[in-house]
Amino acid sequence: MVERSLGFPAAEYRARTERLQAVMRTAGQDALVLTVPADVFYVTGFLTRFWESPARPWFVVVPAAGDPVAVIPAIGAELMGRCWIDDIRTWAAPDPVDDGVSLLAETLAGLVPAHGAIGLPMGLETHLRMPLGDYARVVERLAPRRFVDATATVQRVREVKSEAEVAKIRAACGVADRTFARVPEFAGAGRPLDAVFRDFQIALLAEGADWVSYVAGGAGPGGYGDVISPADARPLAPGDVLMLDTGAVREGYFCDFDRNWAIGPAGDAAKRAHAALFAATEVALGTLRPGMIAADLHRLMADALTVRGAVPLGGRLGHGLGLTLTEWPSLTPKDRTPLRAGMVLTLEPGVEMSPGRIMVHEENIVLREGGPELLSTRTPPELPEIG
Amino acid sequence: MVERSLGFPAAEYRARTERLQAVMRTAGQDALVLTVPADVFYVTGFLTRFWESPARPWFVVVPAAGDPVAVIPAIGAELMGRCWIDDIRTWAAPDPVDDGVSLLAETLAGLVPAHGAIGLPMGLETHLRMPLGDYARVVERLAPRRFVDATATVQRVREVKSEAEVAKIRAACGVADRTFARVPEFAGAGRPLDAVFRDFQIALLAEGADWVSYVAGGAGPGGYGDVISPADARPLAPGDVLMLDTGAVREGYFCDFDRNWAIGPAGDAAKRAHAALFAATEVALGTLRPGMIAADLHRLMADALTVRGAVPLGGRLGHGLGLTLTEWPSLTPKDRTPLRAGMVLTLEPGVEMSPGRIMVHEENIVLREGGPELLSTRTPPELPEIG
Repeated sequence: MVERSLGFPAAEYRARTERLQAVMRTAGQDALVLTVPADVFYVTGFLTRFWESPARPWFVVVPAAGDPVAVIPAIGAELMGRCWIDDIRTWAAPDPVDDGVSLLAETLAGLVPAHGAIGLPMGLETHLRMPLGDYARVVERLAPRRFVDATATVQRVREVKSEAEVAKIRAACGVADRTFARVPEFAGAGRPLDAVFRDFQIALLAEGADWVSYVAGGAGPGGYGDVISPADARPLAPGDVLMLDTGAVREGYFCDFDRNWAIGPAGDAAKRAHAALFAATEVALGTLRPGMIAADLHRLMADALTVRGAVPLGGRLGHGLGLTLTEWPSLTPKDRTPLRAGMVLTLEPGVEMSPGRIMVHEENIVLREGGPELLSTRTPPELPEIG
Repeated sequence: MVERSLGFPAAEYRARTERLQAVMRTAGQDALVLTVPADVFYVTGFLTRFWESPARPWFVVVPAAGDPVAVIPAIGAELMGRCWIDDIRTWAAPDPVDDGVSLLAETLAGLVPAHGAIGLPMGLETHLRMPLGDYARVVERLAPRRFVDATATVQRVREVKSEAEVAKIRAACGVADRTFARVPEFAGAGRPLDAVFRDFQIALLAEGADWVSYVAGGAGPGGYGDVISPADARPLAPGDVLMLDTGAVREGYFCDFDRNWAIGPAGDAAKRAHAALFAATEVALGTLRPGMIAADLHRLMADALTVRGAVPLGGRLGHGLGLTLTEWPSLTPKDRTPLRAGMVLTLEPGVEMSPGRIMVHEENIVLREGGPELLSTRTPPELPEIG
């Protein structure tokens, strides 16, 4: 018999499930309910762009022991049946009368003792992907069982990537590496930023992205205004700093890094900003070790910027990466998450060049026992020039 | 003074806000809290791919009277400042101690009387995009104010598109129309399906998509297995039916329709299936009128298939469309949503050709007083052949 599974051998998913179950035991959680694409993909290998439709909720229940149970809309049965999951329960969604509420409640009632605890991620950087009203109905039906926060259960397991996962993230980074090398082919003075964004996405696909979930960037004289706006039609001009950032997806795994260029000869301020950003990631690459916390890594980079006379941006200076564009932890002064070997992180220092004008630089790494290993190809120390 | 706004003139957003407020008054809702990208975009014009990061919650509060208030992470202040919204309140997210909870609670406390009702979409096809634990904190802080389901408030307003919105959806459909016409350039016997998916996305971008949020499809002899799986590497072969489906985005608005082709000469079963699907949409195009309900439209198409000896697929046979790939209502036997002039809908009949092999066809329309107006270019009545 050929063992069914998608993306990875079934053994990878079994190992993930067992790691979750080990944490669940410690936390006293008798089942875990997963509703968001990344969590469902992590446990089952169920990968589809159909999540783009907000119409239907999807559930995977990880019991305290044994294999996960998929409680899903019938439209997903065929694809889930090609994953390693045997127990697939479906309903005809969307159903305005009972959109999976009874099926989920019955499933949980069969797996969780009457006074048991059902884990659900409820904390920072999570949300529940089902109607709030239906969640209340499920809670009521399952009483006296109680729902408890399982954010840590999911995060402590998912944040340490297997070597198979690291290989997939490295492959996604390779797509972006090759694409960034081609940017001078389609970006330059006179080209509108929205056309550059379009060509950038086309190049990402041509270089091997399965799809392009995220593209951002900016361009302007002496830096850009922000890093989340869609492109406008303004043509690039000499003196601009151009930044392109992407979360390209390959086999369900993301990269997330950016590159900067000067349009025409780089000005002194842009050169200095880029050098400071390069130095900040250089410090992180040389100094970061497992056992530090997220706030330590933030401080390393912020201090490296300040010591060079640069003004660090507020907000986080990097984050986790993998099954979504961004994962916990957040590199901020307040985040005390321990950084562990096997974590994949972005180093993303940013500086304010002048009021309202910024430059941001980003690399992707996997943290090893001995320190960071780059997954992105290191940006050159000097700001590259186009044209 | 130049009036700030993105995407549409500020008057469009003001009109939307006033329509929401009119329904809120009827429903006794003293404020409306919006958390998902489409709802935030609808009211503010705030359009960004940054939603791809699950790290931060975003809130827009529509008060009973007056302009909306944005309660958002600081990283969004620059872009929101270019929208028409004046009252923008920010915090440094992600914050593990207080990730917008206090700011949202204070904002609502200032807008809603102590025994007032705060509307939040909690029903079918909705979810709350913030941590569940933080929602509980906000609810507790605002007591005795209560949170009530505002699904209908949002849906009855958003589902009727303005002419400006219809124009944007038509433009998105045009991107897909032009791209579908080019599919024979890159699809044919011997080409792997995953390469076809990649080229299809590249062509969508080249034809004017800002980004490609959704691509699906399938290929196989005598139909495909499902419509949500990622592409595999199997080469197309004579006798296959190929289907490609896309939700391409232009200026924040989606199209959502598909096309089928025979690889090589079409077989009789494939010809019959396509003819039945064409006939089903033809019936809908000729018969659908405002005042029918979603279930009526489902029945029209299902009956049209059955009368031709075809086996209609279970699940819905179409849905709303606009700011997301799929919107309510769902064309199922259970959905009693009235169909109103100005609604944009997909007609999406599907048939089972043999056990486990299906064909699905889809068109996009806007419902007018006199009946449907096509937004997609009508598929040819006979199944097109490639090669």
